[in-house]
Amino acid sequence: MLFSGSGLLQELLVDTVTGVPESVAPIDAVAAALDAAGTLLQQRREFSRQRQAVIVANPELQERELLKLAALANTTGEALRNRGIPDPTASLAAHSAVTVFQIAFTHWVTAKKPPDFAACVAEAASALRALK
Amino acid sequence: MLFSGSGLLQELLVDTVTGVPESVAPIDAVAAALDAAGTLLQQRREFSRQRQAVIVANPELQERELLKLAALANTTGEALRNRGIPDPTASLAAHSAVTVFQIAFTHWVTAKKPPDFAACVAEAASALRALK
Repeated sequence: MLFSGSGLLQELLVDTVTGVPESVAPIDAVAAALDAAGTLLQQRREFSRQRQAVIVANPELQERELLKLAALANTTGEALRNRGIPDPTASLAAHSAVTVFQIAFTHWVTAKKPPDFAACVAEAASALRALK
Repeated sequence: MLFSGSGLLQELLVDTVTGVPESVAPIDAVAAALDAAGTLLQQRREFSRQRQAVIVANPELQERELLKLAALANTTGEALRNRGIPDPTASLAAHSAVTVFQIAFTHWVTAKKPPDFAACVAEAASALRALK
């Protein structure tokens, strides 16, 4: 997956969402989680590119990847609910975070001269906000 | 899936997104698609409930369901790109529509006294907008 073990990404997101102060809005909690993931990813772009190329060439791995992203949305939603955020807000924030992550990651890993991962996340998040 | 054949839902979403006038904003195009899906779903709540109960009890069917939802996001994104909407907007609008659909559907199918499907969609869409 996006990391050598997707468990690491999942743990990072859940730990970050769980660790931010309660006063932080749900959307900012997941944004902090994406920042944390980005810092880690930024150190591994070449690895991420190679891994992505393998996945894109293999439908079965693509399916596994999609299921991991769905699991990521579920555990992030669970972490938000554990912070007292009710549904549907918790689920929507978690799914939106994973959508932004997925689109930012694809851009970052496929662009010839990609900006930093954090900039890819900021661009996707801003485009999402502009939809409303 | 949500319909007896998930192909029907996919076709409905793509046809609606493709058919709305070009002046319609991407987010409104996918909203129109959700409305169209809702009209069809509303006629089949009991069937949807029974089907959902089977899926929830079976991890393999759950995986298939998640993969179908991911495919739905991809084809809806493709339909938006075919209308001239560039990425990341097309992908973000498509993924957000599927997120809203998924959360609205879960609420609609599990609530004891659910409102109309359209009201579930409106509630989820409004909660999504409130995140920003």
